[in-house]
Amino acid sequence: MTADLEVPGSWRDYGAAGLPSPLRAALEAFVEHGYHGTSVREIAARAGLSVPGLYHHYPSKQSLLQGLLELTMADLLRRSEQAIAEAGDDRLAQFDAVVESLLRFHMYRREQAFVGSTEMRSLDGDYRPRYIGHRVRQQRMVDEIVLGGVDAGVFVTADPKGAARAVATMCVGVSTWYRVDGELGADELIERNLEYARAIVGYVAR
Amino acid sequence: MTADLEVPGSWRDYGAAGLPSPLRAALEAFVEHGYHGTSVREIAARAGLSVPGLYHHYPSKQSLLQGLLELTMADLLRRSEQAIAEAGDDRLAQFDAVVESLLRFHMYRREQAFVGSTEMRSLDGDYRPRYIGHRVRQQRMVDEIVLGGVDAGVFVTADPKGAARAVATMCVGVSTWYRVDGELGADELIERNLEYARAIVGYVAR
Repeated sequence: MTADLEVPGSWRDYGAAGLPSPLRAALEAFVEHGYHGTSVREIAARAGLSVPGLYHHYPSKQSLLQGLLELTMADLLRRSEQAIAEAGDDRLAQFDAVVESLLRFHMYRREQAFVGSTEMRSLDGDYRPRYIGHRVRQQRMVDEIVLGGVDAGVFVTADPKGAARAVATMCVGVSTWYRVDGELGADELIERNLEYARAIVGYVAR
Repeated sequence: MTADLEVPGSWRDYGAAGLPSPLRAALEAFVEHGYHGTSVREIAARAGLSVPGLYHHYPSKQSLLQGLLELTMADLLRRSEQAIAEAGDDRLAQFDAVVESLLRFHMYRREQAFVGSTEMRSLDGDYRPRYIGHRVRQQRMVDEIVLGGVDAGVFVTADPKGAARAVATMCVGVSTWYRVDGELGADELIERNLEYARAIVGYVAR
């Protein structure tokens, strides 16, 4: 299982997802009918491949799901790491960066986020821990920044990890209702949610 | 479609969900395999019924999904209304009540919440607007309390509806990770999240 999706440009840039066509076809089918409601035949047809042609690259429906989620998480983690690195040493800037990265990903990759959250149930037992590890790693990025900010006196909260969890929950949940083509602009949504996230961790401007 | 599930006792009390056995069987199957990955035969077997016996009460798989989501939303809405009514005229008490109600529901009815959020895609077009109407009604309860609180000077936020949406997103999202049998106690989680919710809407204790 390789995860070498290129992220061109900034962590803020979201164009087409750039998935290989079998994974794009699997994504569309899983979003519409779920993993268990989708056949390999349907995915092959959507990808414009024969079933043997599809199996040549992905030997099972499970490998399509795993390949899709592996690329999804690699993309999210790389963007978040890049955002945090760019923010430098300032705790608040790091916090804003990881929150913005989580928000953008869950606004612009909502279909991938949907499959990730709904089809964890469908992952084979030998891969599932790896996938959960990716999610834990993302949460740890938020945890560490909030914990560091509390140590530095930038944030004031009695339960830094609980606050970090609430922030991530709010950002991830945006994927359940935000529409890129809707009325609410992306930058406005991000600006507002940065305020809410700062309020959750008890940031007081000085 | 009737929705007359009894809610015994307080809006805070969560025992067994009290679903009719065909709906309980449908819930379990949809959680495991999704709507499209589940057959009526499987639901009948789980409910200990013959397929004709199941069809006698629910004439289609779609009617099982609709029946389940209708009872789920009726339960949520009734609890939230009861919580708000008990809170009396105080805006902050109303806010705390609706937040706690949302949190408890998404902690104790996480499987129903999961099917509600994942299988909206599977609802027939003639029922879907009714279901979305229920969800909008729940959101409006939060919106109105936050708007009223801002008017009364209890909350300070530039975008009351945006803040209300963020609060609801955080509460609903708890269903994606909270485990009733996990380490984090329900009352502790509620207490923390009430703090975060108050922070989002800009409540300043006086």
